[in-house]
Amino acid sequence: MVLKTGAGRIVPPFRVMDVIQTANARAATLPPEAPKILRMEVGQPGTGLPYGARAAVQAALQSGDALGYTEGLGRPALRARIARHIADWYGAEVSPTRIAVTFGASGAFPLAFLSSFDQGDKVALASPYYPPYFNTLKALGLNPVVLPCGIETGFQPTIEMLDALPEKPDGLILASPANPTGSMLAPEALASLCRYCDANGIRLISDEIYHGLTYGKTQASAAQFSDSAIVVNSFSKYFSMTGWRIGWLVLPEDMVRITERLAQNLFISASHISQIAAEAALDCHEELQANRATYAEAREVMMHGLRAAGFPTFSPPDGAFYVYADIEDRAADSVAFCNRLLAEQNIAATPGLDFDSERGARYFRLSYCAPLADIKDAMARLKHLS
Amino acid sequence: MVLKTGAGRIVPPFRVMDVIQTANARAATLPPEAPKILRMEVGQPGTGLPYGARAAVQAALQSGDALGYTEGLGRPALRARIARHIADWYGAEVSPTRIAVTFGASGAFPLAFLSSFDQGDKVALASPYYPPYFNTLKALGLNPVVLPCGIETGFQPTIEMLDALPEKPDGLILASPANPTGSMLAPEALASLCRYCDANGIRLISDEIYHGLTYGKTQASAAQFSDSAIVVNSFSKYFSMTGWRIGWLVLPEDMVRITERLAQNLFISASHISQIAAEAALDCHEELQANRATYAEAREVMMHGLRAAGFPTFSPPDGAFYVYADIEDRAADSVAFCNRLLAEQNIAATPGLDFDSERGARYFRLSYCAPLADIKDAMARLKHLS
Repeated sequence: MVLKTGAGRIVPPFRVMDVIQTANARAATLPPEAPKILRMEVGQPGTGLPYGARAAVQAALQSGDALGYTEGLGRPALRARIARHIADWYGAEVSPTRIAVTFGASGAFPLAFLSSFDQGDKVALASPYYPPYFNTLKALGLNPVVLPCGIETGFQPTIEMLDALPEKPDGLILASPANPTGSMLAPEALASLCRYCDANGIRLISDEIYHGLTYGKTQASAAQFSDSAIVVNSFSKYFSMTGWRIGWLVLPEDMVRITERLAQNLFISASHISQIAAEAALDCHEELQANRATYAEAREVMMHGLRAAGFPTFSPPDGAFYVYADIEDRAADSVAFCNRLLAEQNIAATPGLDFDSERGARYFRLSYCAPLADIKDAMARLKHLS
Repeated sequence: MVLKTGAGRIVPPFRVMDVIQTANARAATLPPEAPKILRMEVGQPGTGLPYGARAAVQAALQSGDALGYTEGLGRPALRARIARHIADWYGAEVSPTRIAVTFGASGAFPLAFLSSFDQGDKVALASPYYPPYFNTLKALGLNPVVLPCGIETGFQPTIEMLDALPEKPDGLILASPANPTGSMLAPEALASLCRYCDANGIRLISDEIYHGLTYGKTQASAAQFSDSAIVVNSFSKYFSMTGWRIGWLVLPEDMVRITERLAQNLFISASHISQIAAEAALDCHEELQANRATYAEAREVMMHGLRAAGFPTFSPPDGAFYVYADIEDRAADSVAFCNRLLAEQNIAATPGLDFDSERGARYFRLSYCAPLADIKDAMARLKHLS
């Protein structure tokens, strides 16, 4: 007897993960003399754990401590250290009790969604978007309300768009810097959206995972402007710890206990060793700023290279490490375009359809967190795309 | 404006996590001459990462590899190694493509539930139960159907109980060895339940997290008897890696892609370093069997000690490292009883109400994974409980 499957069947793939697998498979069959595959698809630093964090992990291993479960919301020392980080970066006072340490930003979203919304609730978000926002909402029985955004608003939503909705949503997801576009909300725009959400009973979820990776513009946190907003952040990007799967939430006071109960049941606790690494990483700014400087250079190379290769249409990547560019009618759609990039030029890139199921057919995303030499090489190859 | 909170508000705490916090707080204020708090509440080995796994982690750190995201369902080498482990332990042939590496068993349950069920579906489980089964089902909009089980069936469900339900459930969760009772299903009973579920269109989810920690009885896996059952397992217990948050699922062929999509969106991947540690831990049986022998001795001490202290009513703990014993009317209910145990005798224990919201008032759970000396000490103190 074939058994039925569940709600998860409606969830589309996170396509970039499939691109990674395809590129891995192609790499394994390339002859040694072929030009290597340039990995521009993946949103993760190649730099690995900061040295200070590595030393902390080694010390913990040598101590012989058993490294069991931690408290559901994380080690008290790490929660306090994150609160201090928020004070350092934004001048915002947040009690350590409002910090929840999570299994990356990935683990933070289900906690934030289940703590905030009931099944059937409507949650607004801009498109193009980070696909797991949409897909996790759907998997949990929530209704994403997509706000189509274009280059003219930097792919960011506005109060006018929210006002134009037939019904007020129950929640709003903001991302600044955003993935896939790298665009940022100005601090005053973020503050206005915070006030609007508070005034209209909309739970704001502010994804700040790319904070620290900005190239001139001022970054602001929703924690500065609202006590009822939820902030999502992670050690994956600026702190260069993707594979360690560690992140955090800033919670409104009245949601701490709800989220703690959910975390106890859904996750027990985040990884102990990753929490130790994360606490040390918060003191590694010298090394991390050097990484950032490398991205800043790579960003210039990529913007110049894209224009030179005939792909001039993209929003200025204010932060993160992506450019989301128009394919300029060089293929039927972005999936076909990315397949060609891989087949002809051994460049792995992510089709815009991953981020926007309609207009994404016209866009592709390149990451500039790859080594600088690879980015230069990719820009040169791009010129020769047939 | 106070904003509403979400579905998570209905989720009760995983009480043992609160007991841990209370015991930690009490430990911090105890005078140095007081007898130390004996930690019998917590279901985690005190032994830490096996030595072979520790060496693998150290080698990975020294290699300088960036340890980024892995494939959504885990490193191919680990998936293959887990498949070999299943062949070694149960003689069952399972393709590595059917293995999904997860953020512990905790991360495995939401994947299994969302891959199997639609909102409102009914999932049967025996009580007393591991609380996150019930609470995660509720948080995801599913309906737990509780089958009250007593000492006479070893706290395990039977086909007769399922047949007696007014409606066939969509799913069934089995746990053998079970938490909190340690009781096991005989292989033929498990096989019958597998056949019953397959014949009746019921998705079986078999929690096998305590496999390897058995004391004489034969353990069997649902993977031996059904191709449509989902198996949940973890490196937390026998493999002594709680804080590393790493586990796995064995999936039916037709659910692999659904679960992969969900995992890509909800988790991206499990922790890279934990996957490296886990693969090495699968070769550490000599050390792990020595741990098991210690538990076997501790189990004897605890069963004898409980009887000697006037707590003779419990199901034989065939596996895991818990005894679930009747409080024998020594307090109004199990919460009051556990509070007294902590206040009078500095013994931390978990009230049965965590596992069974009705009959659990009469039971408490003690873990025997604490150091043997602590268990002997606890049994001596228990005799002096007023």
